[in-house]
Amino acid sequence: MELFTAINMRQSCRDFLDEGIEKEDIEKIIQAGIMAPSPLNSQPWDFIVITNKNVKEQIWHGVEKCKANIAETSGWKWLDKYSVKFLQTTPVIIVVTGDKTKSGADVFQEGGPVAYQHACAAAVQNMLLASHSLNLGSVWFTLFDKKAVKEILNIDDNKVPLAFVCLGKSAKESVKTARKPITKKTLFID
Amino acid sequence: MELFTAINMRQSCRDFLDEGIEKEDIEKIIQAGIMAPSPLNSQPWDFIVITNKNVKEQIWHGVEKCKANIAETSGWKWLDKYSVKFLQTTPVIIVVTGDKTKSGADVFQEGGPVAYQHACAAAVQNMLLASHSLNLGSVWFTLFDKKAVKEILNIDDNKVPLAFVCLGKSAKESVKTARKPITKKTLFID
Repeated sequence: MELFTAINMRQSCRDFLDEGIEKEDIEKIIQAGIMAPSPLNSQPWDFIVITNKNVKEQIWHGVEKCKANIAETSGWKWLDKYSVKFLQTTPVIIVVTGDKTKSGADVFQEGGPVAYQHACAAAVQNMLLASHSLNLGSVWFTLFDKKAVKEILNIDDNKVPLAFVCLGKSAKESVKTARKPITKKTLFID
Repeated sequence: MELFTAINMRQSCRDFLDEGIEKEDIEKIIQAGIMAPSPLNSQPWDFIVITNKNVKEQIWHGVEKCKANIAETSGWKWLDKYSVKFLQTTPVIIVVTGDKTKSGADVFQEGGPVAYQHACAAAVQNMLLASHSLNLGSVWFTLFDKKAVKEILNIDDNKVPLAFVCLGKSAKESVKTARKPITKKTLFID
């Protein structure tokens, strides 16, 4: 698929067919993530590919609890209507973790280390584009409690779960979300 | 350009020809950034496009100071040899800022708000891929002091400069950096 088509047509999908994905496609998607740039080429990412039903169930339970906590703290009423049940049936959940010992010079700066997270986010973006070009739906999901996910998946202390990439064949066409125009977002200093 | 070609062949470039870039290309690159996903579609990014020589000079001075500070704090000897002079001659520097009031549910979580930064990182990755497909070299540059950059560019309090995307025609082919294989980075839970 042409790059700009992938960039422009990719959309978040939260409604998947009950069908598995070829392992070859999963590997192509992860390989796309691996090709992202990172500070000092530290490659801070790791990928946990979950297809196991029980583990997905545990993940979903954790997310429901996290959602309830945030609904209470935030007062965001719409969260009640935001269903996360699709996590139970999503064919593949790839958990992307970042190793906080693999950041850049930001380790020595205020607010750091955080560049390892930026690199992982770039990897996720590559993965979403790759998924779309392989005719798969995907969503970048972050409504989870990091500690709970670390416990369920037995993740090393240094590694932080940063994103779920939920993957599968789309059950329906995803809604296109609008963007503010470039003129409202850009300042030229000539 | 085919998506996977862009993902696999993009490399960091720090050696640019002394030639400008078409405004149309700059806009295509920013538009690619704008198409990234963001929490609650908050679009937390803004772009400052610098082609002005004096401003680039100020930016470069700030970076030299930041580099010297980090060299001292870190004890990283190699930093002395890492030249940042290319910032003076880079045809275009796009500063990507993130609005910390435009994050997601992570506002209510430990370590948040940070999802707005992840969205901006996804935007940067789109921009790097777009640049490559337009036959332009680029590098994701972060060795700067946020406060100094905010002052030079008079950036709003809520907005954090997160990355420079340095852009231009490559003066020479960039070095390909190696990646660890997928088998060392992936765990399957079937």
